[in-house]
Amino acid sequence: MLPKDVQAILEEMKAEKIRGASYLAKKGAEAYIKLSDLLDGFELSSAIEELSREILNVNPTMASLYNLTHFIKPSQDPEFVKAKAQEFIKLSEEARKEIGNIGSELIDDGDIIITHSFSSTVLEIFKAAKVKGKMFRIILTESSPDYEGLALAKELKKIGISFEIITDAQIGFFAKKSTLAFVGADNITQDGCVINKAGTYLLALACFDNGIPLYVAAESFKIHPKLKAEEIEIVERKFKRNHFLIRNFLFDVTPWRYVRGIITELGILVPPKEL
Amino acid sequence: MLPKDVQAILEEMKAEKIRGASYLAKKGAEAYIKLSDLLDGFELSSAIEELSREILNVNPTMASLYNLTHFIKPSQDPEFVKAKAQEFIKLSEEARKEIGNIGSELIDDGDIIITHSFSSTVLEIFKAAKVKGKMFRIILTESSPDYEGLALAKELKKIGISFEIITDAQIGFFAKKSTLAFVGADNITQDGCVINKAGTYLLALACFDNGIPLYVAAESFKIHPKLKAEEIEIVERKFKRNHFLIRNFLFDVTPWRYVRGIITELGILVPPKEL
Repeated sequence: MLPKDVQAILEEMKAEKIRGASYLAKKGAEAYIKLSDLLDGFELSSAIEELSREILNVNPTMASLYNLTHFIKPSQDPEFVKAKAQEFIKLSEEARKEIGNIGSELIDDGDIIITHSFSSTVLEIFKAAKVKGKMFRIILTESSPDYEGLALAKELKKIGISFEIITDAQIGFFAKKSTLAFVGADNITQDGCVINKAGTYLLALACFDNGIPLYVAAESFKIHPKLKAEEIEIVERKFKRNHFLIRNFLFDVTPWRYVRGIITELGILVPPKEL
Repeated sequence: MLPKDVQAILEEMKAEKIRGASYLAKKGAEAYIKLSDLLDGFELSSAIEELSREILNVNPTMASLYNLTHFIKPSQDPEFVKAKAQEFIKLSEEARKEIGNIGSELIDDGDIIITHSFSSTVLEIFKAAKVKGKMFRIILTESSPDYEGLALAKELKKIGISFEIITDAQIGFFAKKSTLAFVGADNITQDGCVINKAGTYLLALACFDNGIPLYVAAESFKIHPKLKAEEIEIVERKFKRNHFLIRNFLFDVTPWRYVRGIITELGILVPPKEL
């Protein structure tokens, strides 16, 4: 049985309804730090094994959780565990910054950039481009039913980047008017599929049909070294509107052939030619 | 100056926010009937010219209004005008029934049929298939921000056709699980593009990518004999959500190459091979 404070973090992770892979991985790392504050020796190493199982249980097919639990190995030394968990968090933050730097180099003055939902990694790209003095504007989807797009709009307003908000159904209409597209990723499979907020696949198709390059911004720990697209479990959260039950799978699958490149902290991954 | 009762119909047409081409054409025909009740002789023929201009003004690029105003020629004989307007309404109703009949033949037992927004012509297909005893179910989009999908859901519930409702952003996710797709059309251009509720283009792309046949159900009077896709004016109705202004173009453009066929009362039109 894991200590109560660690259980509490796991409960928070399970209850999280909006934020995705990066947030959950960070929370998971914090659970290891908490554990290393409370236990040591054999108790610690066996609790780490249990915690890793529990973290994977939050979402058994999410790469960021898989990679976190493989980054932190069972150990009897609390200092070592804490150092590894802190290193994971630090590497994640540095990765996001570096993706911002690399991604912003793809933006030219005058670009009209379309994005879908709210990716903090994509926001990092916009911030870096703004700091570099690039002139561009954003088209963003409101992203029903949780309206993550409106949260992104608030952030863009704060930092003075101009934007327009569209309904999700207009993704095709506005992709045609765009010059560039960026989306985040919740998960990238071993066969190069991008699992991201439902609607990403539609944006990718519309960009592809109009010759608009679409890039995915994702820290390398979001790449699953083993699972293929069809093995990924897509979470659903049904809701009601006007007494009708609405199906609500949170993510969809975008095949790699519709993606111009995946921007990681290590560089931009491009799809193999034969796709 | 047109009579007050006729003006009132025009105002209704201009104010209409949800219903599209079929509804507006019928309303327009009713305006001619009203006019033929009130005027005759030279007064009537010149009022018809004015009414036709005003009807076109409601939406200058809408085929159904263009075709209505060409179906009813200026005449000094009220009986003749009334008969033509009534004929237009009757032909429209018969066309919808016949499309229902033709379209329902495309449905096989076990089909999972995806549709977007609410087309009364597509509903006619579902009704005819139900009468013929076919077993199928519908996946329909809620169709934000006006939720026409929920109105369709109510109709399907009444007639006992099973359905599931999805958010617009899941069009790609659920197109993959479908076996057939039907949409309506607000306008079909001379170059074969389908102008329909924003999101139709996305559904067409997703169906095409997954080999799912997508058919458009449209009375032949929705085909514009002159205008090409880029000449069509797409109506926008911006709205606010959480203090943010949301762009809201009502329609998008689906190129003919993504459409398996356009079901009209005259038969199924298929795209030319070279597309």
